[in-house]
Amino acid sequence: MPNSPSEKALVPFVSVADMMRLVHHIGLEPLLRALTDAIEADFRRWQMFDKTPRIAAHSREGVIELMPTSDGTLYGFKYVNGHPKNMAEGLQTVTAFGLLAEVSTGYPLLLTEMTLLTALRTAATSAMAARHLAPKDARTMAMIGNGAQAEFQALAMKAVLGIDAVRLYDIDPAATAKVARNLAGRGLRVTSCRSAEAALEGAEILTTCTADKQFATILTDNMVGAGVHINAIGGDCPGKTELHRDILLRSDIFVEYPPQTRIEGEIQQLDEDHPVTELWQVIRGEAPGRRDDRQITLFDSVGFAIEDFSALRYVRDQVEGSDFYQEIDLIADPDDARDLFGMLQRAAL
Amino acid sequence: MPNSPSEKALVPFVSVADMMRLVHHIGLEPLLRALTDAIEADFRRWQMFDKTPRIAAHSREGVIELMPTSDGTLYGFKYVNGHPKNMAEGLQTVTAFGLLAEVSTGYPLLLTEMTLLTALRTAATSAMAARHLAPKDARTMAMIGNGAQAEFQALAMKAVLGIDAVRLYDIDPAATAKVARNLAGRGLRVTSCRSAEAALEGAEILTTCTADKQFATILTDNMVGAGVHINAIGGDCPGKTELHRDILLRSDIFVEYPPQTRIEGEIQQLDEDHPVTELWQVIRGEAPGRRDDRQITLFDSVGFAIEDFSALRYVRDQVEGSDFYQEIDLIADPDDARDLFGMLQRAAL
Repeated sequence: MPNSPSEKALVPFVSVADMMRLVHHIGLEPLLRALTDAIEADFRRWQMFDKTPRIAAHSREGVIELMPTSDGTLYGFKYVNGHPKNMAEGLQTVTAFGLLAEVSTGYPLLLTEMTLLTALRTAATSAMAARHLAPKDARTMAMIGNGAQAEFQALAMKAVLGIDAVRLYDIDPAATAKVARNLAGRGLRVTSCRSAEAALEGAEILTTCTADKQFATILTDNMVGAGVHINAIGGDCPGKTELHRDILLRSDIFVEYPPQTRIEGEIQQLDEDHPVTELWQVIRGEAPGRRDDRQITLFDSVGFAIEDFSALRYVRDQVEGSDFYQEIDLIADPDDARDLFGMLQRAAL
Repeated sequence: MPNSPSEKALVPFVSVADMMRLVHHIGLEPLLRALTDAIEADFRRWQMFDKTPRIAAHSREGVIELMPTSDGTLYGFKYVNGHPKNMAEGLQTVTAFGLLAEVSTGYPLLLTEMTLLTALRTAATSAMAARHLAPKDARTMAMIGNGAQAEFQALAMKAVLGIDAVRLYDIDPAATAKVARNLAGRGLRVTSCRSAEAALEGAEILTTCTADKQFATILTDNMVGAGVHINAIGGDCPGKTELHRDILLRSDIFVEYPPQTRIEGEIQQLDEDHPVTELWQVIRGEAPGRRDDRQITLFDSVGFAIEDFSALRYVRDQVEGSDFYQEIDLIADPDDARDLFGMLQRAAL
């Protein structure tokens, strides 16, 4: 078999179907807990990573981004798009895939779908931030924006923080009905609300996850009481925000990687030198998180490459030795490394 | 079949084996000619592309790079590594894969191996530059560095320029023997030489393609006569060059994308404002190429994202409707775009 690829040429590939099987094998809530811990472990060694704001190709309709990082031993990147108008065409707003590679050789170790994995790691990152910032014994989350991320956010907060109630609101009642239906029987008290104000009632954690590519005001200042934790996910690219500026001015703001968040996050509405705290410093105990029960904490989440790296590594560890992947012939690997041409020639025989 | 992925979830994937079959189906020289024309067509519309220097993650052993670009309709990127020490471990110095996507939705259109495709597009780019810069009626190329790229370079110059002789030199005679063996019977007079000086005798085109990650001097000033065209490929990352600085000072220098070449190319040895000509301007007739038969022209090639974009698009056009690809389940695509969670839930049934 002159054309059968060598072992090094074959890269483990986790398809969407494989990822879904893996999630059910591990269990969604245990997986969300483990992923939260995996991301937190990498935030604790934040300074070991190469960090760069993601590389974005903006168009009128959306954005395509590459998000690379490396800890010196492994290299990971994610391809991800964000196209709010996709939904009207029956397509996902966000789709993604990613790759893990070995720094010492540059050879890929894992190719995987990341549409589902991004939803999982985004929810796990929210839970990680809330674990350090939300009021102690928070039990209720308001979920404003009931799109593809909503159920994952709710279940991560349940799995990691132990919330037991979620209050839903979306401008489209059908989206709220979808989330309510999907969360039924999962151990959460689910309340569907007719307004954002109603959804916020009694909630200690306010999560916003809406998709419009514009300066939107999902929450206005008078809607937000003292002592809450805000988990703002949807404001994640230039010109796309969710919170009124006045809320930001009343909040202590926590971010992933400031050079990226200042471009993409809610804080693009503020002066460039407005003080923010890096979440990794809170996690390491090097900066204060929540100090008192009147304080508003805001996690201005945009999504950072290290979270994807943690997720890629977690998936790789989980699928190793399993049948949750197939191998694909991605890398040319001739017997004699210099003889790429000879390999091609022999393939004609 | 609740879990069978929809059509949009499936991305055409061209494996290494598929790429080799495609090359033999089209024929190597016709393919190199077509690819040269495809790249040249994109260089002619240079200003339509988003351009950025590639995003490099350097380590002691090598580099991993992402090379994105877009023409506003299609988006492409390549993952590529460069690890000179890999060869000693029986691995490729350069491996690559790439993706083409639709700007309007962000959905992938093609995933393909690019180790072979990079060798092909690099050779085609050299041929495109030589078509505009080499002496008229050049018949002989010296090939210094007889690694994985060498045969492709020689055959592209034959297919596009009509050279009929190639003179080989490598510090490792086994590498030269490999190229001589591979090129036998392909319509080129092949001469294996014992020194770089000997290889240059009578050659109108001097191609250097060596791999050491260091400031090397493959060609010294006294070795290079008037009137030749130099095609310098191996100097392609910071701290990695092949030509003595004095040669650069005697040459008219042509580059792909100056902000990248100033970092990575031979011209990293020169002042930041040393004049260079952008190749696309020559191709469009907006800047002079070769002016006289005493002039030394130097294509300081580092490889640019637009060349990969052209190659990705070419491959996509060729495989469409063929069996030179398989489909892989890379993108999650629930029936209701907002119901990613529901798709996951139904997969458990």
